[in-house]
Amino acid sequence: MDLKNYVASIPDFPIEGILFRDITPLMADGDAFKETIGRIEAFAREAGADVVVGPESRGFLFGCPVALNMGVGFVPVRKPGKLPRETVSVKYDLEYGSNELHMHADSIKPGQKVVIVDDLLATGGTVEATCKLIEKMGGEVVGCAFVIELVGLKGRELLKNYNVFSVLEY
Amino acid sequence: MDLKNYVASIPDFPIEGILFRDITPLMADGDAFKETIGRIEAFAREAGADVVVGPESRGFLFGCPVALNMGVGFVPVRKPGKLPRETVSVKYDLEYGSNELHMHADSIKPGQKVVIVDDLLATGGTVEATCKLIEKMGGEVVGCAFVIELVGLKGRELLKNYNVFSVLEY
Repeated sequence: MDLKNYVASIPDFPIEGILFRDITPLMADGDAFKETIGRIEAFAREAGADVVVGPESRGFLFGCPVALNMGVGFVPVRKPGKLPRETVSVKYDLEYGSNELHMHADSIKPGQKVVIVDDLLATGGTVEATCKLIEKMGGEVVGCAFVIELVGLKGRELLKNYNVFSVLEY
Repeated sequence: MDLKNYVASIPDFPIEGILFRDITPLMADGDAFKETIGRIEAFAREAGADVVVGPESRGFLFGCPVALNMGVGFVPVRKPGKLPRETVSVKYDLEYGSNELHMHADSIKPGQKVVIVDDLLATGGTVEATCKLIEKMGGEVVGCAFVIELVGLKGRELLKNYNVFSVLEY
């Protein structure tokens, strides 16, 4: 099954000059969605994950089914103000401005083996920041999995200390 | 398995006077997460869904695994500016201000049977607006499923024309 047939490429979205890879057709097709989740799940099992972490909001789309299939828990990474209990947080720079991510402070147990799942590996900033949060809580990041990798943006270099997997490269 | 043991109740979040029901512990436990998804899946199968729709972002947490388990597609409902192709949209009033939801205009085929999955049934405004979007595209809403229902807010009354299911009532 060539999963690229289920990714739409949209020029100039969200701004001019960006070619947006739209994964909604892939999710709308039950077989393509299953195949995608299966490939990420195989990676996460091989990596020995005992919990899956996913950043808001598109990390939820793929991370939750992977966790469920593996029989392990899912832990969300969220924007400020969304999590009701004590959190750990990290700020990181974007091209313009900065971003801040939060996880509940008790969400990762020391020694837990974590796979992070997100839809897209671009520059890698979000997932690198997520790795720091997990490590701050004593967790071990055993893998980072993505549906789509934009190879030209060199996110793998930023994540060079981690085990990185992507289903589709562009 | 008493799933209420996996829901944390947080007073005065996000504002004073609100008792927030936090489902992150439920998701962090692989068995509790599986049990929750299984109950929603049983409802969605009984309702005859051939696609699952979930509102951003917490609808993704439960809707995606349900769709995957059933072998059907998942369609996201998103805030303005997130979907790259032509959309249908609906505005609805909140207590203060208003909210706007979008779906890709080709995301539901005429005659498709849809189950909407979200984490929380409060006043029901988000899901009622989502029903309108689905119906605008010719889809049939055969069920609305929630992890938590806040019974006192009477969302079921707003959704009285629909088949409503919740896993846990508060």
